[in-house]
Amino acid sequence: MPEIKLTIGDKNLSSWSLRPWFLMKYAGIPFTEENIKLDRPESRAELNKKSPSGLVPFLQHGEAAVWDSLAISEYLNDQFPEKNLWPEAALARATARAVSAEMHSGFSALRTVWPMQVTHRDLKHVTSGGVQRDIDRINTLWTMCRRDYGKGGDFLFGQFSIADAMYAPVVSRLTTYGPVALSAEASAYRDMIIDLPVMKEWEDGARAEIGIS
Amino acid sequence: MPEIKLTIGDKNLSSWSLRPWFLMKYAGIPFTEENIKLDRPESRAELNKKSPSGLVPFLQHGEAAVWDSLAISEYLNDQFPEKNLWPEAALARATARAVSAEMHSGFSALRTVWPMQVTHRDLKHVTSGGVQRDIDRINTLWTMCRRDYGKGGDFLFGQFSIADAMYAPVVSRLTTYGPVALSAEASAYRDMIIDLPVMKEWEDGARAEIGIS
Repeated sequence: MPEIKLTIGDKNLSSWSLRPWFLMKYAGIPFTEENIKLDRPESRAELNKKSPSGLVPFLQHGEAAVWDSLAISEYLNDQFPEKNLWPEAALARATARAVSAEMHSGFSALRTVWPMQVTHRDLKHVTSGGVQRDIDRINTLWTMCRRDYGKGGDFLFGQFSIADAMYAPVVSRLTTYGPVALSAEASAYRDMIIDLPVMKEWEDGARAEIGIS
Repeated sequence: MPEIKLTIGDKNLSSWSLRPWFLMKYAGIPFTEENIKLDRPESRAELNKKSPSGLVPFLQHGEAAVWDSLAISEYLNDQFPEKNLWPEAALARATARAVSAEMHSGFSALRTVWPMQVTHRDLKHVTSGGVQRDIDRINTLWTMCRRDYGKGGDFLFGQFSIADAMYAPVVSRLTTYGPVALSAEASAYRDMIIDLPVMKEWEDGARAEIGIS
């Protein structure tokens, strides 16, 4: 099988990049990464040359050049069926996809007002402009997933799945801007994800990129 | 197999509803539809009671209650593998998913400034505020799909796929607000889709709902 290469943006800021990186790292899919500093003038030209959409993340794998975090996840699920990147049961899989798609197209207030900054903790914040509504919905979703599908493990659907990767940037935000009131289940889930070695590895990478230790 | 029920919003306006409706109609997947008038005060309560996300569209199928147009599409692809709702070749399938995901999370200027109004033609319009950039990107994507993957038919990936359903509301917009400069391939694609009997059926339904003939 050809090598997988994932091109991503700055680790401190690029929330969409974190998703496929976290997915492949946790699932044990080997890949190399290429990093593009998004705030440099030459980056736009470099991205337009390399990425089919001019955006990060994108994944190259032999002839395939796949963009968009959710499409990359579905591509990996197709290529590595033995990794069970979606829950195996049809009902859980349908719900995992719905929850992931809702993240993919929604929560614009949270994403705009609370940008990801993985190296920070307990930043001052506002919950106006729709942020509290987004947090409430995420709290509802996480609590529902953990109660209805979470029996077989600590992740949203028990075992690790693409849904966890899709929400990893939100876990980071709900740690950076805090404290945030969540249900017991949602709060435990957030704390479990943020403490995973792969999340620490991403955060260490972010620190190295911006020159802090 | 249990009956499939799709709950959708007003046909003239609800672009996200058109996608799974168009997908199932064209692919020949039998379903019943339930229509909710989104602008009525009682609709919000009705939606919150029925839809797991409080949004349309959503699909009920036995125990499954799936929301989000893309997640519904993936669910149907899982349930009806014989319908080949995604292209069969891995490379085409990966690209179809990327193109569909880009529609799912993007093109916010076009969606906001040019709301879907299927019963109208040649409305006055502006292309400022990012609309022209969105149109240019859609033109690029459609042209690329038709040239690289469109050999086996008239659709984006030759044969009909979920990607066509995801872009059906854009086809409608690019007919409602016109004329719009597109490549020969993209223009032919738009005209082919808008003339499909299933698109006419949706438009007739919209006319009936708002009481015009």
